[in-house]
Amino acid sequence: MSAAVEYARQNAGRFLDELKALIRIPSISTLPEHKQDVNAAAEWLAAELNRIGMENVEVIHTPGHPLVYADWLHAEGKPTCLCYGHYDVQPPDPLDEWKSPPFEPTERDGNLYARGAVDDKGQMYMHLKALESLFKANSGKLPLNVRVLLEGEEEVGGEQIARFIREESDRLKSDFALVSDTEMFAPGLPTLCVGLRGMIYTEIEARGARTDLHSGMYGGAAPNPFFALAQVIAQLKDTAGRILIPGFYDKVEKPSDDELSAWAKLPFDENHYRETEVGSTRLTGEPGYSVLERTWARPTLDVHGMPGGFIGAGAKTVIPAKAVAKVSMRLVPHMTPQEAFEQYKSYVESLTPDGIQLEVRLIHSGDPIVVGTDNPYIQAATVAMKEIWNKETVFVRGGGSIPIVGDFERHLKIPTVMMGFGLPDDNLHAPNEKFHIGNFHRGIESIIVFFEKAGAIAG
Amino acid sequence: MSAAVEYARQNAGRFLDELKALIRIPSISTLPEHKQDVNAAAEWLAAELNRIGMENVEVIHTPGHPLVYADWLHAEGKPTCLCYGHYDVQPPDPLDEWKSPPFEPTERDGNLYARGAVDDKGQMYMHLKALESLFKANSGKLPLNVRVLLEGEEEVGGEQIARFIREESDRLKSDFALVSDTEMFAPGLPTLCVGLRGMIYTEIEARGARTDLHSGMYGGAAPNPFFALAQVIAQLKDTAGRILIPGFYDKVEKPSDDELSAWAKLPFDENHYRETEVGSTRLTGEPGYSVLERTWARPTLDVHGMPGGFIGAGAKTVIPAKAVAKVSMRLVPHMTPQEAFEQYKSYVESLTPDGIQLEVRLIHSGDPIVVGTDNPYIQAATVAMKEIWNKETVFVRGGGSIPIVGDFERHLKIPTVMMGFGLPDDNLHAPNEKFHIGNFHRGIESIIVFFEKAGAIAG
Repeated sequence: MSAAVEYARQNAGRFLDELKALIRIPSISTLPEHKQDVNAAAEWLAAELNRIGMENVEVIHTPGHPLVYADWLHAEGKPTCLCYGHYDVQPPDPLDEWKSPPFEPTERDGNLYARGAVDDKGQMYMHLKALESLFKANSGKLPLNVRVLLEGEEEVGGEQIARFIREESDRLKSDFALVSDTEMFAPGLPTLCVGLRGMIYTEIEARGARTDLHSGMYGGAAPNPFFALAQVIAQLKDTAGRILIPGFYDKVEKPSDDELSAWAKLPFDENHYRETEVGSTRLTGEPGYSVLERTWARPTLDVHGMPGGFIGAGAKTVIPAKAVAKVSMRLVPHMTPQEAFEQYKSYVESLTPDGIQLEVRLIHSGDPIVVGTDNPYIQAATVAMKEIWNKETVFVRGGGSIPIVGDFERHLKIPTVMMGFGLPDDNLHAPNEKFHIGNFHRGIESIIVFFEKAGAIAG
Repeated sequence: MSAAVEYARQNAGRFLDELKALIRIPSISTLPEHKQDVNAAAEWLAAELNRIGMENVEVIHTPGHPLVYADWLHAEGKPTCLCYGHYDVQPPDPLDEWKSPPFEPTERDGNLYARGAVDDKGQMYMHLKALESLFKANSGKLPLNVRVLLEGEEEVGGEQIARFIREESDRLKSDFALVSDTEMFAPGLPTLCVGLRGMIYTEIEARGARTDLHSGMYGGAAPNPFFALAQVIAQLKDTAGRILIPGFYDKVEKPSDDELSAWAKLPFDENHYRETEVGSTRLTGEPGYSVLERTWARPTLDVHGMPGGFIGAGAKTVIPAKAVAKVSMRLVPHMTPQEAFEQYKSYVESLTPDGIQLEVRLIHSGDPIVVGTDNPYIQAATVAMKEIWNKETVFVRGGGSIPIVGDFERHLKIPTVMMGFGLPDDNLHAPNEKFHIGNFHRGIESIIVFFEKAGAIAG
């Protein structure tokens, strides 16, 4: 075992305590009233990066939430890794469904329960602790060059980091990126994610009457924006789940036969998945595709919320002047957000009901990604994980977007190793988010070994 | 001119000043912090009823806001009128859209601007001033027996008065009721409302997954409750606006040919209505019916809000575990809320999408109402209004419910004369609510003459 892994094992308890301290800062990027908390988390991380031995540590203030940057670039002739993570979290509501307070990290059954435990504070913090372990075990040196770039607005679109990468790509020159914001396919099964769906997140605003009207007096004459949105939404997918936007599937790339046959061998039980993860009476989605294909390799469309009108308890008989639907689509390789949005927008506009004006807005988007499994850094990661977990590493795709991975590819021209240690039942974005504590520690060890092996590749 | 009308004209200025004093009490029944104000308005009215000569004046405390009762029952052999009004008001927000403060009544262009000016403080107060005028002009006597019953929670559902009428119907024995909470069809056009739509207000709750899920990871497999609700709602009406619930129109009573031809003669300009009142690009509703038929005599269905999921700014990629649609239907004579709800519920349930569980709940309901235009009190009101306004009185219906009118019919077995003096642009429940001051004074005079003529009918 490497000395760095040994160090990580000896300091495991402290590492977890530090993570708890970070989690207690409620750095909710979506809520303006938590802006100071987001700042505080950035300052906390900058201090920690300094402490462990990183250089050029900087809290970069932006029009949005700050970025945190640090580097250590003294491994001559070695490759450079760009470590990315985000320290902002989703809002915790609905609060009453949490078994312990969302910002008071609580250990139960080998898990750490808290908002941000796994997404992404816990996973991001593994990078810092792997670096600390390597510094300590190697007299203040790392086996490769490292840049760390952390953001505080991943949950609100990541606009600032996207601009930073676009405008300051020279300053970020690296050979590959490491992102730990994905999950293992099953407990104990080392997993690398080599594909991600892209996405477009949109709003459809429907406007009818000039002001809110009373449904008693105007019902039967005034257009109802919610009814209009229901009509539009019901025509976006058929009842079986197939998206009806013309041309939407035209450029969808089918996974290779190798990939499909590998997926078929993964330990996946559809009934178990339905019962324990989803908990619905049936699964939905396009007929003719397996669940893994539907969630990894097929575009999908979801409605997230419909703001407007009256949402309190009881009855208010308003015909609202306007209503909004938040609708997103997941995209797969060879689709582009721009073309998908154009197809969607013109289709939605073609469905405009009488008396209603629709506005279709793009809130944010991300490109779909595929990384070749023969990439040397992916190979190094594969071997490193196998060493720590004593099992063959499996390659999967992710259904969600990590827009930053697209930015790395587009602006820095580098591939990303997506080495994540979340589990499928971690309740991301939901009450009772958790991180398996064993995965936190094995994750740190996996990253240490990965850095050691990646350092052996010609930079 | 009767001496009572003469008295009202001589005291017009004072009457208006008194109304302003009542309006300055911000008796907002929906807001707990205004509970004392609602009480203060009740006490103010009780004092005024005593002052003008009513007897047995009582502020009746209830688990909700108080009722105010008074009577004068010394007109032997004469009919008894039950005067109803409400002294509570809607919240004034959005405050920044008011041109003058909502609780500082302000005269502009012949109107009195304030929250409650017309709904219903101003209209209710006409009854009291008509009674005062009759007492003063007739040596402390009225031409008929009168009960006054005022409530302080009409804007929050009127639960206490409904219970009072149900449980103490003996104490309220009357021959007819007088309610001034409706409007004139056009300025200067004396109007009686002889029909009201009923309603059922419902919620449809759709449940999919057990907890909120991330649409990246589960999109394509987890059922989406908003999409399910959109599918259901889109099947409740066709694109032209016809309700698709089986049997829903079966018992709808068509207005008489007389009524229809009278409506056709009303001064109604559909384009003007669309542009100035609704402000939409087109009106909607069932084909083959005029706007007045659609809003007065046809059932309608509206969606008021869709709580659930993510409604904040920006993007949250949640597949919510559940979502709710608030849906109400307006009912017309010969429909019953119970049957309408049963038809609706079983139809909605039949539309349940795969993987979704639906629950359909009735929040509240009200019966539709029609009063015959040949009713002697309606006839007396018709003649009285014509005398004051020098125009033929028109009969209209109202699209909204006034649940108390149903309670009077059901529990007291009496018809209600709905003689209102609001105008279509009075901004009820909205900023800059107003009451035309001339209508306040002509309303008092109309009610005086109506009481005189109703007193001549055998009780």
